[in-house]
Parts: sequence; structure tokens; C-alpha cells
Amino acid sequence: MIILGIDPGIERTGYAFLKHEGKSISLLACGCVMTSKNDTLADRLLEIKTDLAQLIKKWQPQRLAIESLFFAANAKTAMVVGQARGVVLVTAAENDLEILEMTPLQVKIAATGYGKADKKQVQAMIQKILKLKKIPKPDDAADAVAIAWAGIGNRIK
Amino acid sequence: MIILGIDPGIERTGYAFLKHEGKSISLLACGCVMTSKNDTLADRLLEIKTDLAQLIKKWQPQRLAIESLFFAANAKTAMVVGQARGVVLVTAAENDLEILEMTPLQVKIAATGYGKADKKQVQAMIQKILKLKKIPKPDDAADAVAIAWAGIGNRIK
Repeated sequence: MIILGIDPGIERTGYAFLKHEGKSISLLACGCVMTSKNDTLADRLLEIKTDLAQLIKKWQPQRLAIESLFFAANAKTAMVVGQARGVVLVTAAENDLEILEMTPLQVKIAATGYGKADKKQVQAMIQKILKLKKIPKPDDAADAVAIAWAGIGNRIK
Repeated sequence: MIILGIDPGIERTGYAFLKHEGKSISLLACGCVMTSKNDTLADRLLEIKTDLAQLIKKWQPQRLAIESLFFAANAKTAMVVGQARGVVLVTAAENDLEILEMTPLQVKIAATGYGKADKKQVQAMIQKILKLKKIPKPDDAADAVAIAWAGIGNRIK
């Protein structure tokens, strides 16, 4: 099974494709879909959708793993992230991916066994588990890897 | 020109198509795209997208009018609405609509000339201006008509 982990954002949407076969789990690809501040919001959302659809076509995942609604610092931030998240979900639905939502807590526990782990600890464990030479950059890509990792262990409700 | 006004929401997305020709402005259609609580979030977002794309194909609008980011009561509500809004914007971008964002204040002023008008006053003015037999139901559809109406007067930046 191939799992796509996504950390959505309007400026950078982190993505990671993990392959899970028997006991072997390997990172196929990870990175960020970037959009430009010079483009309109609608064009940026369309870019996220188009780039994501291309990546899905290339790597053929069966599952999308994504963090559930989080409680952002303020309503404006929440709405901006929500727009990108909506586009990610609709792209997944158009491509018939099963969708697994997890809390940030579940993602941390999956990577480190510890719910209060900080970002650095999660990244270090992900690097170790997946035997990566480096921690993926930027943070959004590394976060997406952790989300995809957590998406392997959890079952669809 | 045909203007599509949208009031996005995950449960109900209000829409209205207004035709503006010379001095004549008429309501072609309005209503709500409804989704079921029994479906997954991704399927609901996909339904909004699919239904909206069909309506756009039928009525061939050139412009989408939509309210700009508003400050919801709380971050969770903002994220839920944001997801639907993102899907509406990406659908508009896929269909090459020009997009006009307006504040709720601008919408109220366009309908009533008064920024503190309440929902009932906006609906009554819209009914009068467009010579409608009844105020459109539900409220989301009526709101979409007011947004489309405001979208006629305002220019794309």
C-alpha cells in the first residue's frame, strides 16, 4: 500500500509518499507544493490541486493521511488553512483515495510513542525509523512524512 | 454578463445566477447545494464541487462573487467554512471565472445603501429590486442573491 501524507497550507503544502509492503516501509518521495503570493487565492488553490493530482497520478497512493481539524490560534488563520485543506480533500475524493484523519496527538504518538514530543523529536524519530540520510526540508515536508507514517498504523473507521 | 453569487457552507452552499444586460438585471436561478451529514467530509466537498460545476456549465457565468474571509465566531467554524470556500474558489478557477471578493459590509451597502442593515432588510430590498414574487428560501440562497447583486456593481481589482 502507498500512503500519501499531507500537511496543507496555502503557501506550502507538504506531501510525502510512503510505501508499506509486508514489514518494509520506505519513503518514495516528499516535498512541498509551493504557491506564489503574487497569484490570486483561487489560482493558488488551483495550483495546489493540479500539482497534487499530478503527484497522485505519478505515485498512485491508495490512502490519504491528514490531520483532523485543529484549533488554530485565530479564526482567520483557520479559514486560510481550511481552504487549502478543502482542496486537498476534494482532490483525494476525485482520485478515489480512502481518507484517514488523525489528531496531531496521534501523529506524535505514532512517531515517538510520546504525546508531548516536540517537532524536533518527531523529525528525529522519523529520520531514524525510515533510515533517512537527512531530515526532510522544509518542515512542512517533514511533517507530511510523520503524518503518512501515522497513517500506516491507523485503521480507517 | 452572468454573475454567480455564492454563500459557501459544508451543509448548504447558497448560489444565485444573475443576468446583467444593459439596464436590465434578472435572476436566472438560485438555490442551495445540499450535502448529507451521513457522507464523509471529502465526499461532501466533492458533491459541492460536482454540483457547482454542473450549474456553471448550465448557466455559463463569467464572474464569481463571494464574500471575503470573515471573522467567524471560532476557529473550528472558520475552518469548516474555509474548506467549502476553498472548493468553491478552485471550482471557479477551473472554469475560468473571474473572481470578485467583497466584504459583508459591501454586500449590505449594495443592497440597501446602509452598512448596518440586517438580514431581513437585505432580503426585502433584494426582493424589491429584482421584482421577485417571494424572498428566496432558504436564507443561504437569499444571501447568494444579495452577493451576486453586489458583484454586479463592483469592479475586479
